[in-house]
Amino acid sequence: MIGIFDSGVGGLTVARQIIKKLPEYQIIYFGDTARTPYGNKSKETIIKYAIQDTKFLLKNGAKIIVIACHTASAVAASELRKKFPDVPIFNVVKAGLIKAERVTKNKKVGIIGTRATIFSQVHENYLKKIDKDIKVYTEACPLIVPLVEEDWINRPETKKIVKFYLKPFRKEKIDTLVLACTHYPLAKEAIKKAIKRKINIIDPGEEVAKEVDLFLKNHPIIEKRLAKSKKHKFFVSDIPFKFQEFSEKILDQKIKVKQISLD
Amino acid sequence: MIGIFDSGVGGLTVARQIIKKLPEYQIIYFGDTARTPYGNKSKETIIKYAIQDTKFLLKNGAKIIVIACHTASAVAASELRKKFPDVPIFNVVKAGLIKAERVTKNKKVGIIGTRATIFSQVHENYLKKIDKDIKVYTEACPLIVPLVEEDWINRPETKKIVKFYLKPFRKEKIDTLVLACTHYPLAKEAIKKAIKRKINIIDPGEEVAKEVDLFLKNHPIIEKRLAKSKKHKFFVSDIPFKFQEFSEKILDQKIKVKQISLD
Repeated sequence: MIGIFDSGVGGLTVARQIIKKLPEYQIIYFGDTARTPYGNKSKETIIKYAIQDTKFLLKNGAKIIVIACHTASAVAASELRKKFPDVPIFNVVKAGLIKAERVTKNKKVGIIGTRATIFSQVHENYLKKIDKDIKVYTEACPLIVPLVEEDWINRPETKKIVKFYLKPFRKEKIDTLVLACTHYPLAKEAIKKAIKRKINIIDPGEEVAKEVDLFLKNHPIIEKRLAKSKKHKFFVSDIPFKFQEFSEKILDQKIKVKQISLD
Repeated sequence: MIGIFDSGVGGLTVARQIIKKLPEYQIIYFGDTARTPYGNKSKETIIKYAIQDTKFLLKNGAKIIVIACHTASAVAASELRKKFPDVPIFNVVKAGLIKAERVTKNKKVGIIGTRATIFSQVHENYLKKIDKDIKVYTEACPLIVPLVEEDWINRPETKKIVKFYLKPFRKEKIDTLVLACTHYPLAKEAIKKAIKRKINIIDPGEEVAKEVDLFLKNHPIIEKRLAKSKKHKFFVSDIPFKFQEFSEKILDQKIKVKQISLD
């Protein structure tokens, strides 16, 4: 199966893109809802959790891993590759940035994410490595996640908050914005309106799905090992209030979720 | 020592009240920052965490336990008493409600808290038990916690959000409001302004400190077992970005925090 993990529910926006792009493959999803969110935790703790999440997916039949969580992608991807050298591991950060580099014309790219993601500086470092002329502007927007989860996205308070967060980008005239948090694609319309000008808005979930697709076309031996089925498996470490409702809204389909403990 | 635990940093508002009321006693604090917040998790998960937190404090010298977390108080207090029958266990929910019952004149009491706290209906049930004529109005205000943690309390967006949450209370003309979440005392001024009329605003941290004080006066044998020292001990399961800053702001003193793992 294609294994996908996230700190919680948000990674379902990535799962949705993978199901859309690769409808024939069975996926196994794990959301660490008992310890969500990762975005305000330390690097060491996030690495520990990401290793546990990956182990769970591999033990349950995943042949390739997609890190859907931007925070885990930013701070734990290289640790995971060291820990599991034989497993193809994809992450949303790299996929989103490759696309950003390709589409920016004025070489001014904005990145929004959680505090841990932005603080890691992984995005700046990676973009500078592929094109040293790109100017990267980052902004931590921690309130967007709870606003999305509360379904407050269309309220005037949210519009004001998003506008406040994006103000520096308007001034810098970026032409490309990377949504470096799984929840943000759900707020895409509010973000678009707050930016005011027409710019490229990149959903890294969409890009990682394309990357996996290309990889499977080039690696038929691994491709053959993947199960073909639409019976996707969803696991979480906690089933909180409103979980089912929110998940099905993101995936636009009924799902059966099983709760497991990582201890 | 007096043991205090919370899902994270917020319980320091309770620790502050206990240190103020009982300055001679040494406290040991545990904040479960690696799994924070509890307020959006399931009852089963919160009970499991609360038992682990209590065990840690008892193993490290706590002789009495104060549950500073409203969510854990609401959903796990009775389980903890069953699990640790010989330990005096106090909780912020009961302390706050006893005070509310005593001060309300029109018998209309408002409760604000996290989704898990409000959903538990513990407040309504308890207040009805001590006075069946009291009308209880509840409102889950999940966005106040991230707004406080982001230090956005004095921003106009926050004022609007708080006003929106408290609107039903203004209509019902409550005369008493219980701040049933550890973060809310830090937003007291914004809450006061949003209510508009002069009402009783109850900080359960203050009330639980009084309750512990009274208990120790009536139980000299237990009182003698408590260490007398100002060298309080602070433990957390993760030290995230800005933790030190936020903690010291709440406690109004420099502290040394040690990170431990509950696994």
